[in-house]
Formats: sequence, C-alpha cells, structure tokens
Amino acid sequence: MITSLQNPAIKNIVKLSKSKERKEQQLFMIEGARELSLALQSGYRPEAVYVCREMFEKTKYPDLLNSLSGEIVFDISLPVFAKIAYRENSDGIVALAKLKQHGLGDLILSHNPFLILLESVEKPGNLGAILRTADAAAVDAVIVCDPQTDLYNPNVVRSSVGGIFTVQTAICSSEEAFAWLQANKIRSFAAELQAAEFYQQTDFTHPSAIVMGTEAEGLSDFWLKNATKRIKIPMRGKIDSLNVSVSTAVLTFEAMRQRGF
Amino acid sequence: MITSLQNPAIKNIVKLSKSKERKEQQLFMIEGARELSLALQSGYRPEAVYVCREMFEKTKYPDLLNSLSGEIVFDISLPVFAKIAYRENSDGIVALAKLKQHGLGDLILSHNPFLILLESVEKPGNLGAILRTADAAAVDAVIVCDPQTDLYNPNVVRSSVGGIFTVQTAICSSEEAFAWLQANKIRSFAAELQAAEFYQQTDFTHPSAIVMGTEAEGLSDFWLKNATKRIKIPMRGKIDSLNVSVSTAVLTFEAMRQRGF
Repeated sequence: MITSLQNPAIKNIVKLSKSKERKEQQLFMIEGARELSLALQSGYRPEAVYVCREMFEKTKYPDLLNSLSGEIVFDISLPVFAKIAYRENSDGIVALAKLKQHGLGDLILSHNPFLILLESVEKPGNLGAILRTADAAAVDAVIVCDPQTDLYNPNVVRSSVGGIFTVQTAICSSEEAFAWLQANKIRSFAAELQAAEFYQQTDFTHPSAIVMGTEAEGLSDFWLKNATKRIKIPMRGKIDSLNVSVSTAVLTFEAMRQRGF
Repeated sequence: MITSLQNPAIKNIVKLSKSKERKEQQLFMIEGARELSLALQSGYRPEAVYVCREMFEKTKYPDLLNSLSGEIVFDISLPVFAKIAYRENSDGIVALAKLKQHGLGDLILSHNPFLILLESVEKPGNLGAILRTADAAAVDAVIVCDPQTDLYNPNVVRSSVGGIFTVQTAICSSEEAFAWLQANKIRSFAAELQAAEFYQQTDFTHPSAIVMGTEAEGLSDFWLKNATKRIKIPMRGKIDSLNVSVSTAVLTFEAMRQRGF
C-alpha cells in the first residue's frame, strides 16, 4: 500500500492538475468509479488505478475492479487519497489514462446531426455542464473552438459527471470548424442577444449546429458574420444574460423537441 | 480612507461570509456596482458602502455613487478591498444591507402565474444560476423550501448576477408551499426521472409551478405524492442526470414557449 505523500507516483498525479503537465505527459486523471466505468466503455485504457479500500467500500460500482488487470491497481491510504482527490464525496478511486486526440475528421455523424459548438469556453464548470447536457440530449458531438480551458481539466471531468467520455468531442479553430460544417452541409445558428430571430421560431429539424460564445464577450465577429443565422433567447428580465450552460441547454432541448424527442 | 485590515468594520464584513453572522446581524454583503444598482431599484437600502476608488474607475456604473448619501460611503484601500471581495473581476464596490423577509404572503402574482419551486437546494451556484434564469424568463417567483443554503450567501448573490434582487422569492417549508399553491389554484409539476409524462407533453399554459429536487437525492416523497403531476425530461444518454439549474431552465423556457414568449 502506498502511504507516503512523497511517493513519486502520487507527486506526479498532483502535478497533472496542471494543463502543461497533462500535455507533456499525455496523461490525465479520472476520479470516481462511475466516471472510470464510462471511460472504459468509451475505450480509454488506464495506465494506473489507485484505490483507497476504506472509501471504495461504499462505491456503487464494486465490480469495476474485476475488469482491471491487477498489475495496474495500487492500494493507497486515506491521507494519500485525500491528497490527490478533487471531489468531496468520492468513492476512493483515481485512474490515470492517456489523452485522446479529438479531430473533426474522427467524428461519426448521424444522418441528421445536431451539434453544439463552443467558442473559447473559459470555465471548466460550464464546459462540464454542457457535456452533461450533450449526453442527456444525445447530440452528435460537442465542438470546442479555440478553448481557454482544456478538455481534460479535472474540473471538466468532474462537472461533466462522465459526459467527457460519453459525448463525441472535437477541438479545432473556428475557421476549421466553419469549413467542416459547410463541407457537411450543417447549418450554424449563432446565439447572441441582438439577433432578430427568436430560437422558438428557428427550424432545427435539419442538420444544425448551435454556436455559443464566451460568458464575458459573447461570440466573435467571425461567427456573427459567417453563421447561417443569428438567433436569440427572449430576455424578459432586468439582467439580460444567461449562464452559457443554461442557454446551451435551452436551445438544445428545443431542437430535440422539434425533432420529436 | 480605511487602510487597516484590522479595522472593526472590515473585520465584520469578513464575518458576514458566515450564515450564522448574517442571521444574527440581519445584514449581508452586496459586491459589484451593477448588483448594488439592482438592489437599490428593488428597495434594498444599504447601511454602508465601501469603495476602492482605484478599481471603481473602471466600473460601467460611475453614477451609482451620486444616488447614495455621502455619509454612508467609505473609501478603502486596495488591500482592504482584496480582503473583503468575493469576485475576481470586481469593480471596487461592496455594500452592506439589511436582509429582507421573504414570506409567501408577500408574493404578488400575475393573473396566470408561473413559479419555480426548489426543495432543499444545496449549492449556492445552482441557486444563483436559477435566479438568473428566473429573471430572464420573467417568472412570477422562486419559492425555496427548506433550503440547505441561504439566499444571502455571497456566492448566491454573485452567481445570480443580481437575480436575487430582481426576482420575487419566498422561503418556507414544503407543507406551507403546497398549501399556498392549493389556495392559489396553482398546479404543481414535480420533475423526476421516473415520471410517466414528458415535459414537452405537459400543458404549462395554466397557473403552474415546477418543483425541483436536490442534485443528490431528487424530490422528497412529499412532493412526489402531492404534486398535481410528475414530469420528466427525456434522458437519451448514458448518464441519466442533468444539473438542476439546467433542468430548471429547460422546463421554464418550454413553459414560456407555450405561453407565447
């Protein structure tokens, strides 16, 4: 059992909270039995799994360890787990896995795709919540353009509740994404406050992508100019803004409603 | 100018980050010029306003100070502001104001009300995001039953972006809320994963309240038994859950769509 906080493997896991280290080592951290189980189903292969047995007793996924080779499973003490864990109510398991590449070319689309495109998303919690929504609504993919946070940030993994593993994702520039949408005959709907058309009047029944800007700045001119259409959610209060994960969900579920789901 | 971190008024503001202190002193903190401006519009009267002029220079609401009596405005230094501030991008102003009472009896309803009812909401960020949604959708009120977080938590004020001031709220027990809904002939729709009816098939055009449970546990038996109807959002992915602020927004905007907004 690993009991020392100075253990090199443990110190390395702590390092992986930094984006730069994840990129260099091509590794990231998966916390939680449910999340690891979803990652395994999606083809991620852990290089090492650390288990605090005291905490793992209360997991709802006790069979998870049976599916893993004993050679990569290491027992750790409670203080060691506390050192590496990100969550408050954790079930005592942390794994390290290789990053995946996320190219537009790898996306597999349905015959009538619906996609969520995020420009320069900043907050890991928002990206995570959007992945969770994307899972629930069964969208084809989430495309992240010019991200300010990386997909494998531990707070994205955590707040997506595993959506990072169940939803197809691609990372690219806005120019690449726009060219790809055109090549695939997918209409783009840019969400912004000054648009002329309300989202309830928009027809989402054809191949569509909604394009969402940052919380602080909204969408760039590139998308405002190039999108097929600009659309807005009616704002009837005094604040004139919604959380980006909320507005993404409102548009996505309206599209699904129109599509009969 | 207040420059000492040991100043009793400054030490007291720090204390007010605790729910117990807010209750005892009947005071809470409002950070940000926009938020304070919305609070003033809603009839909150600050007892004291602390301004860091260096930071307030960049505010978009420079006229705010003109509307305040000079007697309650105090200049503070940058380190003092940093000590009491909650936000990263702040515009240098913090006010203290008296708590309001939030009784069901004080709510003013439209002729065809739509309400959001939250049972035992736990996370300040979720309550804040829901208040922001409630403002945008112009719902009649948000009723918070048996809350696990208090309405004046600084993180609720912050994440609501001022929605705490623009939206009518009431705090009560579930029993009181249910009796009040009945007395006002308002139908209640309990959101839960096992419901038979999908929300898109639900008629929200009559006086309605959606009833949302906690992230961890969902709704209590009380609401599952007593609500007019149980409804669900279709879950087509592998995760089977949505963030409560997201599901609240999806239901609320569908109701508004049905009502022609």
